[in-house]
Amino acid sequence: MRLARIGDVGQERPVVVVDGRAHDLSGLTPDLDGRFLAADGIARVREALAAGLPEVPLDGVRIGAPIARPSAVVCIGMNYAAHAAESGSAPPERPVVFLKHPNTVVGAFDDVVIPARSTRTDWEVELAVVIGSHAYELDSDEAALAAVAGYTVADDLSERAWQLEESGGQWSKGKCGPGFTPTGPWLVPADEIDPGRLRLRSRVNGEPRQDSTTADLIFDVPTVLRELSHYMALEPGDLVLTGTPEGVALSGRFPYLAPGDVVEIEIDGLGRQRHALVAPGARDVR
Amino acid sequence: MRLARIGDVGQERPVVVVDGRAHDLSGLTPDLDGRFLAADGIARVREALAAGLPEVPLDGVRIGAPIARPSAVVCIGMNYAAHAAESGSAPPERPVVFLKHPNTVVGAFDDVVIPARSTRTDWEVELAVVIGSHAYELDSDEAALAAVAGYTVADDLSERAWQLEESGGQWSKGKCGPGFTPTGPWLVPADEIDPGRLRLRSRVNGEPRQDSTTADLIFDVPTVLRELSHYMALEPGDLVLTGTPEGVALSGRFPYLAPGDVVEIEIDGLGRQRHALVAPGARDVR
Repeated sequence: MRLARIGDVGQERPVVVVDGRAHDLSGLTPDLDGRFLAADGIARVREALAAGLPEVPLDGVRIGAPIARPSAVVCIGMNYAAHAAESGSAPPERPVVFLKHPNTVVGAFDDVVIPARSTRTDWEVELAVVIGSHAYELDSDEAALAAVAGYTVADDLSERAWQLEESGGQWSKGKCGPGFTPTGPWLVPADEIDPGRLRLRSRVNGEPRQDSTTADLIFDVPTVLRELSHYMALEPGDLVLTGTPEGVALSGRFPYLAPGDVVEIEIDGLGRQRHALVAPGARDVR
Repeated sequence: MRLARIGDVGQERPVVVVDGRAHDLSGLTPDLDGRFLAADGIARVREALAAGLPEVPLDGVRIGAPIARPSAVVCIGMNYAAHAAESGSAPPERPVVFLKHPNTVVGAFDDVVIPARSTRTDWEVELAVVIGSHAYELDSDEAALAAVAGYTVADDLSERAWQLEESGGQWSKGKCGPGFTPTGPWLVPADEIDPGRLRLRSRVNGEPRQDSTTADLIFDVPTVLRELSHYMALEPGDLVLTGTPEGVALSGRFPYLAPGDVVEIEIDGLGRQRHALVAPGARDVR
C-alpha cells in the first residue's frame, strides 16, 4: 500500500495507490498530515480500502510530497562511514543533528531551481522516516519503531559552499534553498518495510552516483529516533532524514549540479524520484 | 498596540491589548498566524479597534506565544561580539544560522522543564522578528524591513553540553528541548519599534545577567533578513531570533539553571517574560 498526495501545488488530494491505481481518500481526511497519522490514519485507510473507495486518475497528474507540510524536517549528518570519509570527517560517535526549513519539502518530480548565487548544489539520497505519534524520551528500539508511521524517499539537496564555507560551521545555511527537499513519491506504511536493509541509489543524467544500503547506517533507524527523542519531542508528520551514503559531488569525484541536469534517486520498496535542475526563472512548478 | 494570544495551551484566542485592556480579535481571525499577518492583519486590527471590539478579561488568564506555531524558528548565532568572545569564538564574518524545532515555542510565563539528562541549561534573551510576508532574495534593507510584521521577545534556551559536546558541532541538538523557546508576551507592530536601539536584559532569581542593546548587533535586523533571504525563503509567521548578548552561563561567570530558578528577560518596548525552571514531572502547563 502506498499513500500519496496528488494534484497541483497547494491543491493536493490524498490517495492510496494499489496495483497502480489511485483511490481517493478525501472522504476520509482532507490531507495526509500529522493529525491524520496520529489518529490511526494508516489503519483507517486499510479499512476504507477494504470497504471500497472511488478510483481517481493518476496518469498525467502531479504527485506532491506524500506528507503535508511537516512541523519539522530533522536530519542526521554523516551517518554512513564512507560518506563521512569522502566529506573529510571521522565517523561521529553520536548522531549529528541539523534541521531544514519545512518549506523546502516539494514533490519527487518537481523541478528544482538552482539558486542564483549557488555554485555547488549537490544531491543526497536518504531514507526518510515519517513520524506517526508524539515521541519524547523513548526508552527502547521497540518504542522508537512504534512511533514510525512509514517511510519515504528524500533528496537532501545541499549547497556546499553555503553549508561549509559561508556558514561558520552550521550546516543549515546550505540546506534550506526553496525546493531543496524533494520528498516521495510514496509514503509506505512502516509494517510493510524493513528499514535496516534497503538499497538506495542516485543517478545524475543516467550515470550512477550513490549505491549503498541502509545496512551500512552507523546509527540505524531505531537508534536515530531513540537518540533524537532525548533532545527534542518529535511530532506526528515530522520527517527525519537518516543521512546519505557516499557518492556525492562533495567527494570531488563528480561535478556539482547544473541547470539541465536530471537527478534520479530511489530506494527499494519506496519508489523513485526524478527531478530536473533548472535555472532561476525557468521553474514551472511552485 | 500589542497583539497577544490568551487562554489555555491549544485554546488561545487572539487579542489586542491597549492601555492594559484586552480586546477580542476572534471575530477578525481565528488565530494570530502567518496567514493573518500576510493578509494585512496588523492594519485590519487597527481598523477593527477603531470601529470597536469587545473587551475580554486579561487578569489571571494565561498568555501564550503571540504567534501561532511558526513554520520555522530561524536563529542567528554569535551576533554580539562580546557574547562570541565569552563563548570562545571570533566574531563571525557572515550571519551564522541554525534552526530550532517550532514545537519549542511556548508562552512567556509558562514553566520550562529542565530535561531529565540536562546538566547545562542556559538562558539567552533575544530580539525576535516575526515575518509578515514571503521574503526571498531581498535586495535592500528597505525590502527586508517591509517583510517584518513586528517584534517580540524570545528566550533561546540552550543545553550547552548537548549543543557543544554531544553534537558533532551542530548546535540544534542543544536548542530543541520541549518549551525551549518562550516567546512573547506581545507582538508589537514593526512601525512602532526601532529595532536598532533596544535595551535587552535578563535576570536569574532577580540577579542581573545580560544587559545590552541591539545597537551592538554585529548584523542588524535588515542585514540579518537580507542575508537569510539569499539562503532560504522566509514565510509569514516565521520567527527569526537575532542572537544573544554576553552574560550567559556558558561564560563561566554564572551557574547553569536548576529547578526552582526563575528567569526574567525583557526588551524595551516589547515587554517582560518570567518563567520558572522546573524538574521533569513538575510541569503544570503543556
